[in-house]
Amino acid sequence: MDEKKIPYKIYLDESEIPSKWYNVRADMKNKPAPLLNPGTLKPMTAEELAPVFCEELVAQELNDTDPYIDIPEEIQNFYKMYRPSPLIRAYFLEKALDTPAKIYYKFEGNNTSGSHKLNSAIAQAYYAKKQGLKGVTTETGAGQWGTALSMACSYFGLDCKVYMVKVSYEQKPFRREVMRTYGASVTPSPSTTTNIGKKILAAHPGTTGSLGCAISEAVEVATTTEGYRYVLGSVLNQVLLHQSVIGLEAKAAMDKYGVKPDIIIGCAGGGSNLGGLIAPFMGEKLRGEADYRIIAVEPASCPSFTRGKFAYDFCDTGMVCPLAKMYTLGSGFIPSANHAGGLRYHGMSSTLSQLYHDGLMEATSVEQTSVFEAAEKFARVEGILPAPESSHAIRVAIDEALKCKETGEEKTILFGLTGTGYFDMVAYEKYNDGVMTDYIPTDADLEKGFAGLPKIDL
Amino acid sequence: MDEKKIPYKIYLDESEIPSKWYNVRADMKNKPAPLLNPGTLKPMTAEELAPVFCEELVAQELNDTDPYIDIPEEIQNFYKMYRPSPLIRAYFLEKALDTPAKIYYKFEGNNTSGSHKLNSAIAQAYYAKKQGLKGVTTETGAGQWGTALSMACSYFGLDCKVYMVKVSYEQKPFRREVMRTYGASVTPSPSTTTNIGKKILAAHPGTTGSLGCAISEAVEVATTTEGYRYVLGSVLNQVLLHQSVIGLEAKAAMDKYGVKPDIIIGCAGGGSNLGGLIAPFMGEKLRGEADYRIIAVEPASCPSFTRGKFAYDFCDTGMVCPLAKMYTLGSGFIPSANHAGGLRYHGMSSTLSQLYHDGLMEATSVEQTSVFEAAEKFARVEGILPAPESSHAIRVAIDEALKCKETGEEKTILFGLTGTGYFDMVAYEKYNDGVMTDYIPTDADLEKGFAGLPKIDL
Repeated sequence: MDEKKIPYKIYLDESEIPSKWYNVRADMKNKPAPLLNPGTLKPMTAEELAPVFCEELVAQELNDTDPYIDIPEEIQNFYKMYRPSPLIRAYFLEKALDTPAKIYYKFEGNNTSGSHKLNSAIAQAYYAKKQGLKGVTTETGAGQWGTALSMACSYFGLDCKVYMVKVSYEQKPFRREVMRTYGASVTPSPSTTTNIGKKILAAHPGTTGSLGCAISEAVEVATTTEGYRYVLGSVLNQVLLHQSVIGLEAKAAMDKYGVKPDIIIGCAGGGSNLGGLIAPFMGEKLRGEADYRIIAVEPASCPSFTRGKFAYDFCDTGMVCPLAKMYTLGSGFIPSANHAGGLRYHGMSSTLSQLYHDGLMEATSVEQTSVFEAAEKFARVEGILPAPESSHAIRVAIDEALKCKETGEEKTILFGLTGTGYFDMVAYEKYNDGVMTDYIPTDADLEKGFAGLPKIDL
Repeated sequence: MDEKKIPYKIYLDESEIPSKWYNVRADMKNKPAPLLNPGTLKPMTAEELAPVFCEELVAQELNDTDPYIDIPEEIQNFYKMYRPSPLIRAYFLEKALDTPAKIYYKFEGNNTSGSHKLNSAIAQAYYAKKQGLKGVTTETGAGQWGTALSMACSYFGLDCKVYMVKVSYEQKPFRREVMRTYGASVTPSPSTTTNIGKKILAAHPGTTGSLGCAISEAVEVATTTEGYRYVLGSVLNQVLLHQSVIGLEAKAAMDKYGVKPDIIIGCAGGGSNLGGLIAPFMGEKLRGEADYRIIAVEPASCPSFTRGKFAYDFCDTGMVCPLAKMYTLGSGFIPSANHAGGLRYHGMSSTLSQLYHDGLMEATSVEQTSVFEAAEKFARVEGILPAPESSHAIRVAIDEALKCKETGEEKTILFGLTGTGYFDMVAYEKYNDGVMTDYIPTDADLEKGFAGLPKIDL
């Protein structure tokens, strides 16, 4: 198709919103390692997971055989509120970089939660409602997941209790108000509302919190409160499954114009966006139908892929959750306080960890001042103020496009723009004032985290 | 066309973005009264306006004969960054209200400036650049216009000096950071950087500022700095002209599905959104081709249409600007400090004032707690967190839909959702905490403002 006919924004029709999620595990030869019961060190059964997660989500979590799973009509209906999201051709950015590369990004910030998190939040809220629950508990870091879950719970009339990492709670007071506007209760974590929170506070007074702590608190409340379950915005297989709508839509939009990406780039914290964006492309790669260069981008201050260990570890600081095999910095790892935004989880999706371990994707890490530099450039030419998380992908997309400028290659780059930065202005202010700093943990810093890895031999 | 086939979101193709603005004044029998030179009380000439505004914008300001004006290619190109904006069928809201009414809204918050203001900002920045200027000055209230102008100036490499109403500057620190991210300088108004600012501060120490003050400061800087001109985000004819893209797109999208609105509702501060939204519909009404019920909604705390006088008045507090004939509360009027959000200008577009005076549209005022109640309801069912300004229109749209529920009438309602409320969380917090208050000025309060009206007899 004539290059010139590709519009700035490709919107699929509402009828083209996927009706099935794609489960990449079905096409993996080496399946991601199962969650283990921390007591028996045996794979968690559906029965053992049921007190924590909703039944249907447990089934999705354990399903590594069905490539497609139907999206319930109620969820498809909600998706119409904000999907399909646009696939944007970054003509303005290409021009500003003077690159022969063709850059596309899938923009998931086009909804009030401000990110892709809503794709899984509505699914998890739906299954909770279907099971007749009263409410759900969760943790949130940067606040995107908590906002998304608040919206989803409000839609289905579920109670929503959010434990928000303390540093984000303080840096992002307005995030809290958005959640409250959607009827959620928000507690800074660690808190004194849970036993595990009290324990963590006693051991680390003055801690700024971590996702690992907040998960422990949310799980404790869910498992000790009648009619509640715990839901999670990243890391889990079920979340990657729901997030496959991102990749499915992106691929459908590109296919429509006969475009095939050479490089696919996504930021990675727990892996929800990256896993969703790459899902159908990785499927083709696994089935030997196509090849793509896939790059995960993480913060240099929280480098689970690039400097972590591939090992079984606790998913939470309180060690109340099952063990997952993943690239991890240890469940006690807490990013330096100068780290802005999300992508602060100590581990990484088991599915993505296995794919990375098997050489099916690359990973790289970037420092935050260079991330905000890319964010500002992007905001000024593309007109979208990106979230710090998303800007990790922008940084590497720009770097790859500049490499194309040097070599003259007309590569096609696709990246995930997971969300907007309207609630990250404290971080932008630091960057604007020239006082933002970088932090790269030393090997000794990381060894402290690794020392906390469970001593198990499988 | 089968009702069921109307999607949730109607997106026009990029090729359907209007290539001409529509100038409603061309179809008005009673033209809006001209701007007057405050010294001579004679209509301002292009020559007299040239030190304040860019040349081409002066021509647009004075043009009340040409119904269509070409949109320059560079502006059309920029529009592709975020337009066409979606026309959304409020299926979720209709269901929640259980109304037979069919509700549509044109959503203009789908861009980083968070509102429709970008439509005119990019036009005004373009003409400034074309004239070879170094930069522009402006005022901003809620911050939407300042953000939009910052984005537009960044795109064209123009310097941008923003005077921000002090109360908003304090309530919305993050707005300032967005503007700075786009390279603008932001000064709280009144300030000591201008003569008029110093004078106002001396007369009213501790004032929270007003748009009228900020305009005076911005105009002073523009007219005393080489290579600068003043630009304005509302009230002026040129702004309503640029904003006609809203109505043109909305009408094109409705026409595509054979839908005709019975009622068109827009919030009104200076009139930029309302004037833009209704433009082509009002054109049909003026030409006798169709009839629509058109409703302007303003805050009860700043009721220029519903309780103001139709008279010549100063556009700014410092009385340095030309006189405009409009519905006004007097240029000294400052809304009560408990008033959240924008829509705080003392006057109203001359064009809209004339149309209202001639009975071609209605106006109503609403109190802010009922506005936020509507905002919360809307956010929860439609998934968009609306700006307080936009929520004035939501309030009346809901009320009209509930009337339909009583009468059983299947009216079609179109309203303008001008923007998002991500930077209005201080106000939402007040509402969430139950401490938001209302304020309706007494007649005596208003008399103080009217007392400042210029004593001229034309």
